[in-house]
Amino acid sequence: MSIKKIKTKEEFKDFVKSTTKIKGYKNPIGFGIARVDKGQLNRDKILQASFAFLNWNENFGTAAVFIAALNECGKKVGFSKSEQIFEVDKRFLKQCIKAFNPFLDEVTEDNHKNIQVIEYLYSLIDRDEVDESDYRVVFIFEDDAPKSVECVYMKLYALSLGKAKLRSLNLNGAFGVLENVAWSGNIPIELDWLRANEIALKLEGEYPNIDSVDKFPRFLHHVIPANNTRILDSSKVRMGAQLSNGTTVMPGASYINFNAGTLGPVMVEGRISSSAIVGSGSDVGGGASILGVLSGTDGNPVSIGENTLLGANSVTGIALGDGCIVDAGISILEGTKITITENEINKINDVNNKKLEVKDTYKGVELSALNGLHFRQDSTNGQIKAFKSKREIKLNEDLH
Amino acid sequence: MSIKKIKTKEEFKDFVKSTTKIKGYKNPIGFGIARVDKGQLNRDKILQASFAFLNWNENFGTAAVFIAALNECGKKVGFSKSEQIFEVDKRFLKQCIKAFNPFLDEVTEDNHKNIQVIEYLYSLIDRDEVDESDYRVVFIFEDDAPKSVECVYMKLYALSLGKAKLRSLNLNGAFGVLENVAWSGNIPIELDWLRANEIALKLEGEYPNIDSVDKFPRFLHHVIPANNTRILDSSKVRMGAQLSNGTTVMPGASYINFNAGTLGPVMVEGRISSSAIVGSGSDVGGGASILGVLSGTDGNPVSIGENTLLGANSVTGIALGDGCIVDAGISILEGTKITITENEINKINDVNNKKLEVKDTYKGVELSALNGLHFRQDSTNGQIKAFKSKREIKLNEDLH
Amino acid sequence: MSIKKIKTKEEFKDFVKSTTKIKGYKNPIGFGIARVDKGQLNRDKILQASFAFLNWNENFGTAAVFIAALNECGKKVGFSKSEQIFEVDKRFLKQCIKAFNPFLDEVTEDNHKNIQVIEYLYSLIDRDEVDESDYRVVFIFEDDAPKSVECVYMKLYALSLGKAKLRSLNLNGAFGVLENVAWSGNIPIELDWLRANEIALKLEGEYPNIDSVDKFPRFLHHVIPANNTRILDSSKVRMGAQLSNGTTVMPGASYINFNAGTLGPVMVEGRISSSAIVGSGSDVGGGASILGVLSGTDGNPVSIGENTLLGANSVTGIALGDGCIVDAGISILEGTKITITENEINKINDVNNKKLEVKDTYKGVELSALNGLHFRQDSTNGQIKAFKSKREIKLNEDLH
Repeated sequence: MSIKKIKTKEEFKDFVKSTTKIKGYKNPIGFGIARVDKGQLNRDKILQASFAFLNWNENFGTAAVFIAALNECGKKVGFSKSEQIFEVDKRFLKQCIKAFNPFLDEVTEDNHKNIQVIEYLYSLIDRDEVDESDYRVVFIFEDDAPKSVECVYMKLYALSLGKAKLRSLNLNGAFGVLENVAWSGNIPIELDWLRANEIALKLEGEYPNIDSVDKFPRFLHHVIPANNTRILDSSKVRMGAQLSNGTTVMPGASYINFNAGTLGPVMVEGRISSSAIVGSGSDVGGGASILGVLSGTDGNPVSIGENTLLGANSVTGIALGDGCIVDAGISILEGTKITITENEINKINDVNNKKLEVKDTYKGVELSALNGLHFRQDSTNGQIKAFKSKREIKLNEDLH
Repeated sequence: MSIKKIKTKEEFKDFVKSTTKIKGYKNPIGFGIARVDKGQLNRDKILQASFAFLNWNENFGTAAVFIAALNECGKKVGFSKSEQIFEVDKRFLKQCIKAFNPFLDEVTEDNHKNIQVIEYLYSLIDRDEVDESDYRVVFIFEDDAPKSVECVYMKLYALSLGKAKLRSLNLNGAFGVLENVAWSGNIPIELDWLRANEIALKLEGEYPNIDSVDKFPRFLHHVIPANNTRILDSSKVRMGAQLSNGTTVMPGASYINFNAGTLGPVMVEGRISSSAIVGSGSDVGGGASILGVLSGTDGNPVSIGENTLLGANSVTGIALGDGCIVDAGISILEGTKITITENEINKINDVNNKKLEVKDTYKGVELSALNGLHFRQDSTNGQIKAFKSKREIKLNEDLH
Repeated sequence: MSIKKIKTKEEFKDFVKSTTKIKGYKNPIGFGIARVDKGQLNRDKILQASFAFLNWNENFGTAAVFIAALNECGKKVGFSKSEQIFEVDKRFLKQCIKAFNPFLDEVTEDNHKNIQVIEYLYSLIDRDEVDESDYRVVFIFEDDAPKSVECVYMKLYALSLGKAKLRSLNLNGAFGVLENVAWSGNIPIELDWLRANEIALKLEGEYPNIDSVDKFPRFLHHVIPANNTRILDSSKVRMGAQLSNGTTVMPGASYINFNAGTLGPVMVEGRISSSAIVGSGSDVGGGASILGVLSGTDGNPVSIGENTLLGANSVTGIALGDGCIVDAGISILEGTKITITENEINKINDVNNKKLEVKDTYKGVELSALNGLHFRQDSTNGQIKAFKSKREIKLNEDLH
């Protein structure tokens, strides 16, 4: 039995409503159709998944259509599982097209992205231009630890597209799920395939140019950044990072790991480690390091506020509020002892809700997340001191 | 009316002389023929301009030919404008060839580059191998703020080819003139085109590999470096940088921005920010930062002298003279307080024209541009001190 | 006269034995068949050599076959030379195949790599799919300074494949032997060829994308890393580096030069300069610099022990033992004065064979290679101090 061609939007609503009455029905957190790259040797290994369009807490009517169409094809969606993956075939796509019928006339380049995906993929398969076994319908119903490559990629997309907040998703075990592969441009190649073909490829002069070997692809392999975002070297931003419009990532010593990024225009010339987040208008100076949960911060993710400056080659292991300055070359870690005069403590307390009690030295962690701190090393006696920051950090408008 | 075929070099000289008598005639600062990359969606947007040969304060006879040929084609060159751009067509090229007639026989690979350009482009268009609308004749008559992509590129070429001195050109507003584009290798792609085609490209597995997203191309996209120059990673040098023969740019934490660079053999393992210049024989250690006018130096561009060593992870915000050393890991900024003994002050004064008066501590800015300073931090008390540098820094000859 | 088809393995052994009785016969240290890239303009310049399989202190029977086959072709191998290079031709390959006859039936993908090379190359040449003048048989008989590009590449392969120990090979003068070339992916291009063709290439829009200009290729151009090794940016590891399984090279400020690398799983976010070696389980933090023999250590190569942590933006110019910590942002050079209390000296002596005598301060070089040191800068008075390290550094198992 198959879905009848739906004639009106009213009918479509009814169709969706009736679908959602399936026992145990649940709206997916995320869903979409992915093209997968399979292993060259091990065809059952998925090396990468590309989402032409990702739905994340949205378009639940389309989800219902996908679920109904899968059911019609005998593929029962299990709502109690955290994630579900199905192969795509022409029959499934045809069911979807029949369901979307009342909307087909109004599809333009900028709307109905899911319908565009369905129709375009149908035409590709229909013309035998692609292999239908390379496509998957993917659902996430629960934000559990991901079990499949497709699910990891969907979460990385959600983060990098800005549809999910940084640190909001469960990525436990993602490293174990993904294959370590050689990347030639944006094409993943199994290391075992390279080994099996090394002699032939090298003798023929056809050994591929390998740009990286990693479990993760690069951000720019999958994501089109905002118009005013700049990434001067694609290797510097891992897929799963999030970059707000106006962010510039310079090629010197910078790096933004997955599940880390920026909340506004930020100049990035240093490292934003996994789980670190930098606020609007801040400047991560050349070679500056924001320590990540995977190293150096005892698992506390570091947030940097707005209009804060990390000087060149500085290191920050504590959270910083707005309008802070860490001078070039100094390191502020959780255990660093920092001297502040009573006068400066009073000024600092004036601009913070949390009040410091007066004492001679503070540990870095006690100053965590405060606004308006300026950290410097007194070059006459080596003391690390903090003052009330005198200047507000503003980015050069021409550059962002 | 068209240019007659010129028969002798004498006749050519007269032709040039008569052309320069056009009312308001002015020799261009720079001129040349560019191939332009247009927007894939917005065909009137210029994304990049490539100069097969750039004339800069030279070859004024050729400029006169170009101007006369344009006039013959009804394209009046406006000498009072700071820059002028015209489309190329076969008729223009033919006029040029007739004017260059007395030189055609003596063209070899190494000479008469402009004639080579004209003849080769004529043959390409004549054989319909290229689209003539992709070529421009570009003139700069005044070094004003650039108004066109072609003019910005011409200035970047002049800097990167070493035909114009670093910091000598007006690049105000260049960021506003250039489009932010995705670069797949050296091919610029409009972000909007990627967006409009994302679904098709991803479903087909044809999404392009993007290496960077930036307004500027990379130096190596356009410039062939000197034989003994090395750039281990093209992302590390922006177009508009200038690298003298013998310069090596390592791939660790290095970066050379536009309008910055080296004046001789220099080992670059750190950052040379916009407007910073490093002298012959100097060594910018791993992760060292030379602050730029766009960040950290209050707009004062930093010059580093000859045979000066910036230690690994050091930061320099002041100008340094010849034979200086900044020890690894320390930061010398304009406001850094530096202690020098009277004995060392005397030794320093011996090798400098500018004499320091004796006092206990100096601000970094007071020591700006002096020769023979060695900056270190006393690791027993944290003091930043300066001494007369005892060693002359020489580069490893094998490496440069 | 040519080699007769050998029928049995016994006969093969005799054949090898008789070959080794040639006057002056010597087993080669290394040998193999290389495909070479020649200069586009200067066809006699070798720009790169790719070894489909490298023999290093192994497979001496195969070496004897190659030597006998060359002799049959009138190419006398000179055993007194440190290196020898011969062109490959069909006749040579045929001789080899006849000698290997008793093994041909048992060749599979995973064994008899040399026979695979010989047979595959024979078939390529036989079918005119490649030019036989692009192949070389290369021998190294003495570890002298390399004289040819092929010999330098063979040594770099031996290091990068882990077949030779780091620092064990003579690479003196390698920089002088190699050509400085432009690399478009893994294809080397003569700079002079680019110059000679610049006008045509740029006008046609066919100017190649240049990724680097260097004498050395990248590690990933030639080497397939172990399954659990990650290199997030190919520019970060030069050919000739050695990376043990489990090593991760991040893209921020990292770099591993030739003749440098890791002995086990290591997180590399900083610079491992030429001749520096890092032990298993250690962590080279973001932007950390291990100084190399070419800069900063007076020619003493630096070894880092196991489970040692170099903090972000730290600099190390001395050897470190096991379980050491250098705090973020500090520099420990040979001349750095380090304060240690008597109590801590005793604890340090407890875990080291070499005992420190009690004194107030030590120079960095005096603490070289000791285990269990923790270096920090006291942020209340600027003193660089050492303590007995309290924690053993372990890598995050998920990541390696």
